[in-house]
Amino acid sequence: MTAGRLEPRVERIKDDIIAFSAFVSPGEPPYTRLSFSPEDLQARAYVCRLMEGARLAVRTDAGGNIIGRREGACALPPLMVGSHLDTVRGGGRFDGVAGVVAAIEAARRYDEQHIRLDHPLEVVVFPAEEPSPFGLSTIGSRAMAGKLWPEHLALTDGTGRSLDAAMRSAGADPDRLPEAVRSPGDVAAFLELHIEQGPHLACAGVPVGVVTGIVGIWRGRIEIVGQPDHTGTTPMGRRRDALAAGSEAVLALEAVCSGAGDIVGTVGRVELFPNALNVVPGKMLLGMEMRGTDTACVEAAAADFTDRLDRIRDSRKIDIAFDFSMSSTPVRFPDEVVSLLREAAISLGIPYAQLHSGAGHDANHLAGIAPAAMIFLPSKDGRSHCSDEWTEWADIAAGTEVLAAAIQALDRRLT
Amino acid sequence: MTAGRLEPRVERIKDDIIAFSAFVSPGEPPYTRLSFSPEDLQARAYVCRLMEGARLAVRTDAGGNIIGRREGACALPPLMVGSHLDTVRGGGRFDGVAGVVAAIEAARRYDEQHIRLDHPLEVVVFPAEEPSPFGLSTIGSRAMAGKLWPEHLALTDGTGRSLDAAMRSAGADPDRLPEAVRSPGDVAAFLELHIEQGPHLACAGVPVGVVTGIVGIWRGRIEIVGQPDHTGTTPMGRRRDALAAGSEAVLALEAVCSGAGDIVGTVGRVELFPNALNVVPGKMLLGMEMRGTDTACVEAAAADFTDRLDRIRDSRKIDIAFDFSMSSTPVRFPDEVVSLLREAAISLGIPYAQLHSGAGHDANHLAGIAPAAMIFLPSKDGRSHCSDEWTEWADIAAGTEVLAAAIQALDRRLT
Repeated sequence: MTAGRLEPRVERIKDDIIAFSAFVSPGEPPYTRLSFSPEDLQARAYVCRLMEGARLAVRTDAGGNIIGRREGACALPPLMVGSHLDTVRGGGRFDGVAGVVAAIEAARRYDEQHIRLDHPLEVVVFPAEEPSPFGLSTIGSRAMAGKLWPEHLALTDGTGRSLDAAMRSAGADPDRLPEAVRSPGDVAAFLELHIEQGPHLACAGVPVGVVTGIVGIWRGRIEIVGQPDHTGTTPMGRRRDALAAGSEAVLALEAVCSGAGDIVGTVGRVELFPNALNVVPGKMLLGMEMRGTDTACVEAAAADFTDRLDRIRDSRKIDIAFDFSMSSTPVRFPDEVVSLLREAAISLGIPYAQLHSGAGHDANHLAGIAPAAMIFLPSKDGRSHCSDEWTEWADIAAGTEVLAAAIQALDRRLT
Repeated sequence: MTAGRLEPRVERIKDDIIAFSAFVSPGEPPYTRLSFSPEDLQARAYVCRLMEGARLAVRTDAGGNIIGRREGACALPPLMVGSHLDTVRGGGRFDGVAGVVAAIEAARRYDEQHIRLDHPLEVVVFPAEEPSPFGLSTIGSRAMAGKLWPEHLALTDGTGRSLDAAMRSAGADPDRLPEAVRSPGDVAAFLELHIEQGPHLACAGVPVGVVTGIVGIWRGRIEIVGQPDHTGTTPMGRRRDALAAGSEAVLALEAVCSGAGDIVGTVGRVELFPNALNVVPGKMLLGMEMRGTDTACVEAAAADFTDRLDRIRDSRKIDIAFDFSMSSTPVRFPDEVVSLLREAAISLGIPYAQLHSGAGHDANHLAGIAPAAMIFLPSKDGRSHCSDEWTEWADIAAGTEVLAAAIQALDRRLT
C-alpha cells in the first residue's frame, strides 16, 4: 500500500480547520458554534463550498445532513465518512471539525491522485451532534438511522423556537424525514475520525487511536427531600438537611466508580431548594450519569450505589428517590472493521493504540445501520469542550492518512 | 400584681391574627406577604385602623415605621413594644404578626382598664424585618437605630425598583431619615414578643420563653475551582471535581458544628458551573453561615473548619478560597430587663423557660439604643417560615399577659 500513499496536505488541513473557527458566536465564550445558530449555518454553507472544491456533488437530506458524494465505479451502496461542525458553548476548534476536514481531505486526495473507488464515497456533515439547545444530541445521525421522532421535532429551545423550525432553517425538510433514513445495507460502511477528548493517546504518545466501541450511558435523577428549617433556630441534631444528604450521595458515587474498574460516574447537575442562606436546605435534585462498555459491570456499580443511598436515607431519616436507566446502549464496533483500521495504521508505519470512546458520537447511530468504526486523535492534556482544546496538525494528517487508507481497504474488502 | 391582671382577650387576638392572613399575595405559596408588596401595604393600612381602635395616635416615621402612641402621665421617653408584618415567601401567619397583635392588645387592655402609665407607650410596626427583595432585612429598625445608609436606599429588587422608591410607597420619607433615628436615652426600653421559630419551648412544654440574647451571625463564601472535564472521557483518578470537593466541605461544616456545643452552621446556597450532565463540575460556590452567642466559640469552630478546607484542597489538588466574617454581633439583653420578664411570668403563675434567639430580630437594632429583651412563644414542631407555622392561641394570650405586665413593671422601675 506504500506505493499509493495519500500524503494528506497538512497545511491545507490546518487552513481549513482554522477557517471554521471564524464562524463563532460573538458575545459567547470562544469557540462557540451552537447547532442551528447563525454561525452554524454559515459554517454549513462554507463546508458546502469546501466539498464542491473537492469535486463532490453536494446535497442536504431531509434530516439536515450535508452529503458530498463522489460516484464509484460500480453500482454499490456508498462508503460513508464524516463528523459534525457544531460545538458546545465555549467549545474548541477540533471536536467535530477535524473529522469533517479529514474526510474532505481524503476525497480531495483521491481526486488529485485520480484514485477511483468501486463504491461511491459520501462525506457527511451531521447537524447538532452536541447537546443542542433543544435538549437533544446527534440529531442528524438520529434522522439517518430513522430515530428522529415527531415528539423530537416539537422540542423547543430557550426562545420557544421548535426543532422543526430550526431544522428547516438549515435546509432540512422534517415533513420528508423517511427520505433521509438509511436502512441496513444502504451504507456499505461508516468511518468517523474525531479527537479523543480524553488523556489516553496523549499519555501514550501515539498519534492515532483505533476505537473498538463506544461506552453506554446510563442517566439518573436523585430527588432528596428533607425539611426546610430556620438555620438559626434549628439545632444540628434535629435537622433533615437535603444538601448534607446530597453531599454524601455525590461522594458515594465517586467512591463506587473509582473502585469499579472501567466505569466513570459523575454528578454534573444540582438544584437546591430553597437555596437561601438562612434556610436549612429542604430539597435537592441531583443529575448523574454512569458510563461503561460492559452493561453487567455498570449494573453492579449502580446496585452498590443504590445500597449506599439506602444507608444515607436510613441514617438521615430523609426521603431519597433514585431513577436510573440506560439512555445509550454500549456499541462494539465489528472486529473486521477495527482490524482493518489497525492494518491501515501498521501498513503506513503510524503508531496507534486501541481504546474505547467514553463520549457518544454520531457513530453510535450509524453503527446500528452499517459496519462502523472510529479513529481518534490525541487531545492535549485530555482536554476538550473548552477553548484550549488542541490536537497537533501532524496528528490530524496522520489520522487522515489512516482514514483514507482504511476507506480504500474497505472498498476492496466489501466489493 | 394579681390584683391588676390584664387578662388579654384570646378571641380578639385570634381574630386579629387571622385577619392579617387575608393580606397575602395571590399566585405565591401561602402565606406570602413580602415587604413593600401590595399586600404588605394593605396589611400596614389595616394595622393603622387596629391601632386607632386601641385609641393610639398613629403616624409613620421617615423610616416607614408605623408608630401608635399612647401618652403617659409624665414627660418621659417612651416605652416601646412591637414587631413586624412582612413574611418570607411561603411564610407563616404568626412570625411577626403575633408580636404586633400582642402589643396592640396590651394597649387595648390598658385603655379598657383605664390604666395610666407614667411613660408614653409606643406600639411599633417595623417594615421589612425579613430578608427583603432588596437583599436587606430589618429595614425599619435599622432606620430607627440610624443604620440605614444611602447605599442601602439605592438597592434594587428583581424588577429594578429601588428601596428608596419602595419605602416611599409605604409612606416613608428617605430624604428625612435622621428624623426617624432614636439615640440612646430616646427610648426608655424596648420589648418584642415573637414566636420562637425553634423547638425548645414546644419540647419543654412551656408557653413562654424569656429571651436572654440573640446569636451573632457569621457569613461565609467558599469558592472551589477544579477543572471542567468531559464526564465520559476523563478517568476518575484524573478529575478535579469541584462538586466532590464542595460535598466534603458541606459535611465538614456539619461535623464541626455538630461537635461544638452551642453553635449551628449551615451551607444554605450552592451554585455549580457549568451544571451540565456531561461536564465534570469545574467550579462551585457555597454560601454558608455560623451562629452562636459566644464569639470565641464560633471563631474556634471556624478555625477548625478552615483546617478541614485546607485538607480538602491538598488531597484533591483543587483551589479553595474561603471568605468569612461577622455580619451580626451577638446581643446580650440587660440582666435587669430579663429578670423583670422572669418576675412577670412568675407573678402571673405562667411557666417559662430561658433561652436565646437563634434568629435575628428587630430587637437586634433596638438593643443598641435602649434596654431591650424579647418574649418567645412556642412554635409547633419548631417550624417557622412555612405555611404550617403554628402557635396556640392560649400561648399567645399568656405571652401577651407577660408582655403587658412587664411593660407596667418597666414603667414603675424606670420612672
